[in-house]
Amino acid sequence: MKQTPLSELGEFGLITRLTEKIQIKNESTLTGVGDDAAVLSFPDKKIVITTDLLTEGIHFNLMYVPLKHLGYKAVVVNLSDVFAMNATPRQITVSIAISSKFSLEAIEELYSGIHLACEKYGVDLIGGDTTSSLTGLTISVTAIGEANEDELVYRSGAKSGDLVCVSGDLGGAYMGLQLLERENEVFKVNPNQQPQFEGYDYILERQLKPEARGDIKELLKTLDIKPTSMIDISDGLSSEVLHLCKASKVGCNIYEEKMPLDKQTKDFAEELSINPLVAALNGGEDYELLFTVPIASYDLIKKEFDITIIGHITSENEGANLVTTGGSIIPLQAQGWNPLKD
Amino acid sequence: MKQTPLSELGEFGLITRLTEKIQIKNESTLTGVGDDAAVLSFPDKKIVITTDLLTEGIHFNLMYVPLKHLGYKAVVVNLSDVFAMNATPRQITVSIAISSKFSLEAIEELYSGIHLACEKYGVDLIGGDTTSSLTGLTISVTAIGEANEDELVYRSGAKSGDLVCVSGDLGGAYMGLQLLERENEVFKVNPNQQPQFEGYDYILERQLKPEARGDIKELLKTLDIKPTSMIDISDGLSSEVLHLCKASKVGCNIYEEKMPLDKQTKDFAEELSINPLVAALNGGEDYELLFTVPIASYDLIKKEFDITIIGHITSENEGANLVTTGGSIIPLQAQGWNPLKD
Repeated sequence: MKQTPLSELGEFGLITRLTEKIQIKNESTLTGVGDDAAVLSFPDKKIVITTDLLTEGIHFNLMYVPLKHLGYKAVVVNLSDVFAMNATPRQITVSIAISSKFSLEAIEELYSGIHLACEKYGVDLIGGDTTSSLTGLTISVTAIGEANEDELVYRSGAKSGDLVCVSGDLGGAYMGLQLLERENEVFKVNPNQQPQFEGYDYILERQLKPEARGDIKELLKTLDIKPTSMIDISDGLSSEVLHLCKASKVGCNIYEEKMPLDKQTKDFAEELSINPLVAALNGGEDYELLFTVPIASYDLIKKEFDITIIGHITSENEGANLVTTGGSIIPLQAQGWNPLKD
Repeated sequence: MKQTPLSELGEFGLITRLTEKIQIKNESTLTGVGDDAAVLSFPDKKIVITTDLLTEGIHFNLMYVPLKHLGYKAVVVNLSDVFAMNATPRQITVSIAISSKFSLEAIEELYSGIHLACEKYGVDLIGGDTTSSLTGLTISVTAIGEANEDELVYRSGAKSGDLVCVSGDLGGAYMGLQLLERENEVFKVNPNQQPQFEGYDYILERQLKPEARGDIKELLKTLDIKPTSMIDISDGLSSEVLHLCKASKVGCNIYEEKMPLDKQTKDFAEELSINPLVAALNGGEDYELLFTVPIASYDLIKKEFDITIIGHITSENEGANLVTTGGSIIPLQAQGWNPLKD
């Protein structure tokens, strides 16, 4: 494949190349790329705004993450935060810092994933910054969304007695990462050995191409259920449950036996002698939604295949606990993901 | 000074520590830090949004840039973009990636500069991301501003015959950087040698603590002058003039003899045998405003001490030129700052 050095284009040439195909999709985007700032308009809406920074070697390893997937995921993780406010994403800005090891073609791959996510979720890429770094790749995405004031859902609204629900299944992204890391180790020892991914396509996709659960937001709207609180699961269920309980000043019991785990997650966990529950509680990167609903919604929610009731909210002084299949009550810990550890 | 390893706090502990003192200043900030996204409201305004990414070793050198100044500057460069739209900044998000070499105290220094800029410019810090990097420090700031629709000024409105104006003076930040680099070289050879900054406090401040020219926006409003086009000078005058001419589909003549240069800029340029004009045209980081006004505003503008008329807009086919003191006409080149060069 042709490898064009970025120095041939310079910053402005690169920006032109990466943004020339952008077509604005949202009425709220008045002007996008091309001025000192983008201009937006939301006369009757509240605006939500969220941002994430991903760095090479910490959040992703280019040994096994294709750049297109990385671009897609960098967008999706931010849209997930917008959906977690029960809002609709409309715009993103994308800033990247790249070292000179990257070619134009590599950056175009990254942007093809960014554009694909914009297309799929109907959001406009309205600006950003393209600059260099001494080493590695850094991606910073900011997402802007809109909601009517009465639609917004915060972390702080859970009430004692509410049902605790999650969308989809948990722990898959973490097990997918374990699989990628294992095959990468094999490859480093023997570059002629093809990676063994058969039967694990689902957990691989959970890691490499997660989706943001805008469909769950729509489903709840169709059911006429407004969650009392909501958060997206980026750092593992434990950590998110604790955030939600702290913000809402409540406790909760969640049940091991209710934990939604995909068969591939369980199978690969067994292969590695990992408890799949640990992957669900502490693994992170599932980008499912954790939310609470009033107990009156029980009948409606329990019919939904893609939503699992995993527990209920209690009073603050009872704490946030996991109830094991054996009946033990274990306080949840924000083990999660500590990126600041050495 | 005490050096607390960041691993002692973890991500959530660090975020709490860095954000606990935030007090919301703007009506448009409904909720800030603490949920999946911040919530904003601008019912009668247009919103402008801009973002910048700064990386260690490229945009700043911690050998001679104090962390507090770095935090301040990272905010200011974004506010400058908001003012360049003739808008008022209201909120920022700040994401940082840090390697384990940084202590809590170092990050608090960085944030003290961020908070100082928020205080000075009346903006709210509403969110961000705090994560780690394998090497070095990366800072990504997104700024959100508001304006009435009829106040917004784009790069694209310059008309033939308009006056080309700049605020303040140019080239100082670049000469300040040369001074810092020279003294740093001296220091590396002889660590006991104190740096020689006497007489150059102004250019040092231009580099280390630039300000965003919200005062110029206010001044023009008081004079009842709405610029026909505007851009902030981050990459050097040449590059910005070319952006403005391209967006407005016009040409221009700017005059060497009109170039606003501070005495310290000229003195230190002479000391280094650099033409100060080159510092103004290609140096960058001055964060002054470049704007055009109708010729009818001439009498009002020329009285303003802090604004200099440096030329006029011509038709597109005449190109964007520098007219030298000797009368030569030289096409401007976007030499500027090419961060993507090896």
